[in-house]
Amino acid sequence: MLKDCLEAVEKKKPFIHNITNYVTANDVANMLLACKASPIMADEFKEVEEITAICDGLTINIGTLNQHTIPSMFAAGKKAVKMGHCVLLDPVGAGASTLRTNTALELCSQIPFDCIRGNISEIKALAIGSRNTKGVDASVTDAVTEENKEEMIDFLQIFAKEKQCIVICTGKIDLVLDGTSCYSIQNGHPKMSQVTGTGCQLSALVTAYLAANPKQKLEACVAAVCAMGLAGELAWERMEKGDGIATYRNRIIDAIDQMNGVCLEKGARYEIQ
Amino acid sequence: MLKDCLEAVEKKKPFIHNITNYVTANDVANMLLACKASPIMADEFKEVEEITAICDGLTINIGTLNQHTIPSMFAAGKKAVKMGHCVLLDPVGAGASTLRTNTALELCSQIPFDCIRGNISEIKALAIGSRNTKGVDASVTDAVTEENKEEMIDFLQIFAKEKQCIVICTGKIDLVLDGTSCYSIQNGHPKMSQVTGTGCQLSALVTAYLAANPKQKLEACVAAVCAMGLAGELAWERMEKGDGIATYRNRIIDAIDQMNGVCLEKGARYEIQ
Amino acid sequence: MLKDCLEAVEKKKPFIHNITNYVTANDVANMLLACKASPIMADEFKEVEEITAICDGLTINIGTLNQHTIPSMFAAGKKAVKMGHCVLLDPVGAGASTLRTNTALELCSQIPFDCIRGNISEIKALAIGSRNTKGVDASVTDAVTEENKEEMIDFLQIFAKEKQCIVICTGKIDLVLDGTSCYSIQNGHPKMSQVTGTGCQLSALVTAYLAANPKQKLEACVAAVCAMGLAGELAWERMEKGDGIATYRNRIIDAIDQMNGVCLEKGARYEIQ
Repeated sequence: MLKDCLEAVEKKKPFIHNITNYVTANDVANMLLACKASPIMADEFKEVEEITAICDGLTINIGTLNQHTIPSMFAAGKKAVKMGHCVLLDPVGAGASTLRTNTALELCSQIPFDCIRGNISEIKALAIGSRNTKGVDASVTDAVTEENKEEMIDFLQIFAKEKQCIVICTGKIDLVLDGTSCYSIQNGHPKMSQVTGTGCQLSALVTAYLAANPKQKLEACVAAVCAMGLAGELAWERMEKGDGIATYRNRIIDAIDQMNGVCLEKGARYEIQ
Repeated sequence: MLKDCLEAVEKKKPFIHNITNYVTANDVANMLLACKASPIMADEFKEVEEITAICDGLTINIGTLNQHTIPSMFAAGKKAVKMGHCVLLDPVGAGASTLRTNTALELCSQIPFDCIRGNISEIKALAIGSRNTKGVDASVTDAVTEENKEEMIDFLQIFAKEKQCIVICTGKIDLVLDGTSCYSIQNGHPKMSQVTGTGCQLSALVTAYLAANPKQKLEACVAAVCAMGLAGELAWERMEKGDGIATYRNRIIDAIDQMNGVCLEKGARYEIQ
Repeated sequence: MLKDCLEAVEKKKPFIHNITNYVTANDVANMLLACKASPIMADEFKEVEEITAICDGLTINIGTLNQHTIPSMFAAGKKAVKMGHCVLLDPVGAGASTLRTNTALELCSQIPFDCIRGNISEIKALAIGSRNTKGVDASVTDAVTEENKEEMIDFLQIFAKEKQCIVICTGKIDLVLDGTSCYSIQNGHPKMSQVTGTGCQLSALVTAYLAANPKQKLEACVAAVCAMGLAGELAWERMEKGDGIATYRNRIIDAIDQMNGVCLEKGARYEIQ
């Protein structure tokens, strides 16, 4: 299953439009190229509909949203939906400011996303208007653990059902849910959370997997999340004395570039809940 | 010839103003520093004329153009020309949206660029209003190959003559033309096209070479294109098991940093057509 | 002293708001994560007050300032001061354009910064309206050397006293002054000046150290400057044949990630003037 999803990306080389933040845009572009997709970043209102129309999928990431890019997000999102493209929302920092929370909520209400990917704080901000978000990291009390996993899954399934989309909640344990099924993924390494942009990169990777696997969207999401986590593990194995997060960042992207379907199938650790 | 061009950059350390995209701005800055030039990025209308006035050259890259930076491109371009600085256009994604195509066309009509560098799709979009561009990559049917090279050269020479500037068309084979002469460059590695921003980096590198070699502009362009391709080759030789595009990106910049004139002269593979 | 400062950052993990340039934002984010702080980048006027309110410190970096982000800098700066957070100004390129100089001067007059960090040209532009700045590098005639050090220290102490803040002037020799005391720091490597963003990264690092050490601000600044310089030395020791500035950039961030208090205390080379 996962092998097929990865190979579909390699074969179709989906062209992904990203309205994303300037902090991690370079890593996002390289992550898309690493999985053999093609990136384009464009956030000017006057061109986003045209740009998204020639692409296969759209990632909306609100990491450094501003008054000029917010209308672009709505325009591109609606156009992409109209074209039948897959659209993903990464609500970076939802809960950290009223503007972020409201923009994310409004995007959710106007655009039928195929997938929403965030940490538990961000998803909670969308689901219940929580204001407990601390930037890009799930606050400690909000982390998904083995102890509260069942409760979290119930909470997230309700949200996924309500939004009629796939929800990917990442953290120590990654959860992929569609309102009915739930996959729990154990791949990854704690150090990944100390590298800026691993979440943004995963979101773009998911968009590429969705665009290349429109008939098995849930599986595509699971495959992308496993691939990213596995890349974090493989990259960690290559770390040498003195290496830190900058080298780790590069090795994660390298690992996606070098990963094939057999490797993914073998290394993926997930279970249906 | 190439050696002199590289050494002029090292000696003059030209200060290059870049109005460029936020995706690859960091790599562009490091590429300029690697060749011993100095970068400054500034795209606010209120300061671009002043900034460009204290620089030696200007790169205009429309990769993430927007309503606020477009007027800055025109103002800076005109000022740089008035100062006698060299000015280069990188029409990223021309053909992908009306805004990009029209902005690039209008820039070309108002600013006498010293050089335009793009892939064949982007150049075609400027030359004949082609709408076949797929983002930053030349579409397959548009690639310059040994078979269609003669035809492409004729096409590009007409464009170069019309625009009265040097045209650099990069792809599997890189062509540098000025309306009369044409250099064909064989340096480079296919993997370079899978690293985001190698085109943007080359454009900035060309601006630095032009700024340091105002009396032999065509040779300066050839030297910069050879240097970038050779860096791609040298970087590739250093790749180890498990390395992918992120490491390759770093090694390419490293190779420019470590390259001297003798190395460039020895490794350059070009011929006059 | 330095050990305590570093360990306070590791313990408190300060959350740092950065209004910064898009060229080096990624490196700044990773540098903050490397020292165990948390970064958030946000420059939209509508949210900066709310964002800075949930943070522990604010860095204002004018590297790619524009009409939309300038009001955000003032709003966030004032809010942060009102909250009792530490605030740092990095006047990138002050002196290179009227807009930069005036914005930096106006920021200084309206916001009581805890620290201003720049090269000597930038500081001079603020102190005496010098227009001799060349981008991000101190112009040669403006470099702090062993010969002119005493004179420079006098000049900088007057500025620090006037602004009632800590001034960090970086270059071959780094100086940290508060109007009374002056620390001279000898850590670092010349190659650091050829990597884009090392100044921006240091500024963010200083903000993190200040936020975690509010009761010994001068010492916190000295610790951060020593840490960055030492990282440059440790990173340089790990360079191999063929490595250049891109690899060096990564190794510097890696070195901060791997540095502990004992290592910092042992490697720091500073003296009170």
